[in-house]
Amino acid sequence: MRATVMYGAGDVRIETVPDARLIESTDALIRVTSAAICGSDLWPYKTMEHSETGRRMGHEFIGVVEAVGVDVRTVKPGDVVVSPFLWSDGVCVFCREGLQSECLHGGRYGFDNVDGGQGEAVRVPQADGTLVVLPVDADGMDNALLPSLLTLADVMGTGYHAAVSAHVGPGKTAAVVGDGAVGLCGVIAAKRLGADRIILLGRHPKRIALAQEFGATDVVSERGDEAVEHVRALTDGLGAQAVLECVGLEQSLLTALHIARPGGAIGRVGLPQEDVFPEAIATFFKNVAISGGPAPARAYIPELLPDVLEGRIEPGRVFDRVVRLDGAPDGYRAMNEREAIKVLIEF
Amino acid sequence: MRATVMYGAGDVRIETVPDARLIESTDALIRVTSAAICGSDLWPYKTMEHSETGRRMGHEFIGVVEAVGVDVRTVKPGDVVVSPFLWSDGVCVFCREGLQSECLHGGRYGFDNVDGGQGEAVRVPQADGTLVVLPVDADGMDNALLPSLLTLADVMGTGYHAAVSAHVGPGKTAAVVGDGAVGLCGVIAAKRLGADRIILLGRHPKRIALAQEFGATDVVSERGDEAVEHVRALTDGLGAQAVLECVGLEQSLLTALHIARPGGAIGRVGLPQEDVFPEAIATFFKNVAISGGPAPARAYIPELLPDVLEGRIEPGRVFDRVVRLDGAPDGYRAMNEREAIKVLIEF
Repeated sequence: MRATVMYGAGDVRIETVPDARLIESTDALIRVTSAAICGSDLWPYKTMEHSETGRRMGHEFIGVVEAVGVDVRTVKPGDVVVSPFLWSDGVCVFCREGLQSECLHGGRYGFDNVDGGQGEAVRVPQADGTLVVLPVDADGMDNALLPSLLTLADVMGTGYHAAVSAHVGPGKTAAVVGDGAVGLCGVIAAKRLGADRIILLGRHPKRIALAQEFGATDVVSERGDEAVEHVRALTDGLGAQAVLECVGLEQSLLTALHIARPGGAIGRVGLPQEDVFPEAIATFFKNVAISGGPAPARAYIPELLPDVLEGRIEPGRVFDRVVRLDGAPDGYRAMNEREAIKVLIEF
Repeated sequence: MRATVMYGAGDVRIETVPDARLIESTDALIRVTSAAICGSDLWPYKTMEHSETGRRMGHEFIGVVEAVGVDVRTVKPGDVVVSPFLWSDGVCVFCREGLQSECLHGGRYGFDNVDGGQGEAVRVPQADGTLVVLPVDADGMDNALLPSLLTLADVMGTGYHAAVSAHVGPGKTAAVVGDGAVGLCGVIAAKRLGADRIILLGRHPKRIALAQEFGATDVVSERGDEAVEHVRALTDGLGAQAVLECVGLEQSLLTALHIARPGGAIGRVGLPQEDVFPEAIATFFKNVAISGGPAPARAYIPELLPDVLEGRIEPGRVFDRVVRLDGAPDGYRAMNEREAIKVLIEF
């Protein structure tokens, strides 16, 4: 089968790899029908050292179940399914708490002999705990909702996790740091959770326009101290109660910490690129909470799915480019150069 | 009047200072009947540079109202009152949210022409927002409950804030880092909030014994990696769901971060001595929340007062030494040398 393999920074290839197949009795074999390139895929795209063997890429996909192991109960061949970006057993103490991203027996796609999602097929471990069946016919894969359904694999769940972690709630002011696909989904999430006012911190006109359609009420396009001043000016000098940190860079985290109102909360979902938080004393005196991490996307799928199916949220609009598998390397390039917000791979 | 003044590290004196008096119409004048030395007073005791003018000390006190300004409505001469360690107006946006420690018009005792609490009298600004009347006769100041009532000024509220910020709840495992007076009150708080298991990280036999009487179920006396291993061994390898960081040193914060269970929360109330948090990446991948700061002690007084009055909690037991005002300098020394857990000053 063909799949996406990264060999180093900027070096993404489509190659023939061993066919995905069932190994464990709890596996499902999925024929991928659409996949996505993630902002987090860009970190290795920028920095990965050359590897002789390469690294299988992708962790956001929708597909059709081709086969299941004998112990799989909840999905069957022919089902259309979405997978969250991490697989999880569904029964451990963390899964039962709805924190499947900390599953004791879970893992990541593309590692440990598990296929990546940007390929023609994937062996999904712990299929019962991982996969969610979508009410879509395998014949109806041109469904207009599919891009939005695909976002439930990661980007929408991640934006939602930022909002939940930042304690967005009715009447609150939320600030979203970052106008990437996660930030845009963070805007959707903040609106869904009842934020009264949603301030987007971003600079790209096209992304800003989409954020406004998603519910952003204010836009702050400055950076650093000027951005902080602007947010304060918009919030009676106090800052935002809920801050969604959707980037992960030192500068964005610092901005998030500075625009948080006393007693506010920061939900961080941008993969942190630094191992320390600054401002430990200032945030202490402000009683600011810092939460977040890898989203339990699996937990959010049942919650968000009805909204997608009924058209109340349209996170699929973050996809502004569609490629075939052969176009995936150029999709990486386009996202890395911020030419595209997010790329969908059709099979 | 006489009051406690610090002139530098290790240099605490009892001196005659100008009598406290009403200045603003919203002030109350309090004759102090008992005060306390705080763990946070030990930071300047260890590090303060010599000052010619000195610094008025103390922010935990109970007393009798002597006089009030014309705009004061809720306290009157003769009332016995407790003050939280910060004064606050009670009406700003933060006070209305119960976060009086972030009051827009509040402040600290001992600064900006406001008396310190370790003196014979105190001018309390914003008396209506700050003071809480206690159901105690001014004649009955030998009441056995007074030490516990005095802890509501700071140490009990601070331990409670650690527990609230760490999301302690029924059935959870809490770990309390630090066996000082705040940590001991954190044990009381964790028990009150329903923790199933309370692990105290501390080394001093007398403090450990008190913690066990307060509800600690397990004691970890190692430090660093060994402490982390011990906590993990006690918690199925997972760590504690709620971690109360009651010290503020780099080592204690690191321990707190390492013993937090994935999805857990750290409530930090120890005044941070470092301006960065370590482990920003590891805590991200663990989805650990870091919260806390200066406790809104004012908010917690009405909540905790009935428990104190009815004897359900006895935080006053953290006082293991009583001095007269002249003995305050030696009280500082005793606390600094960990000879005393916490010192009560009787007037």
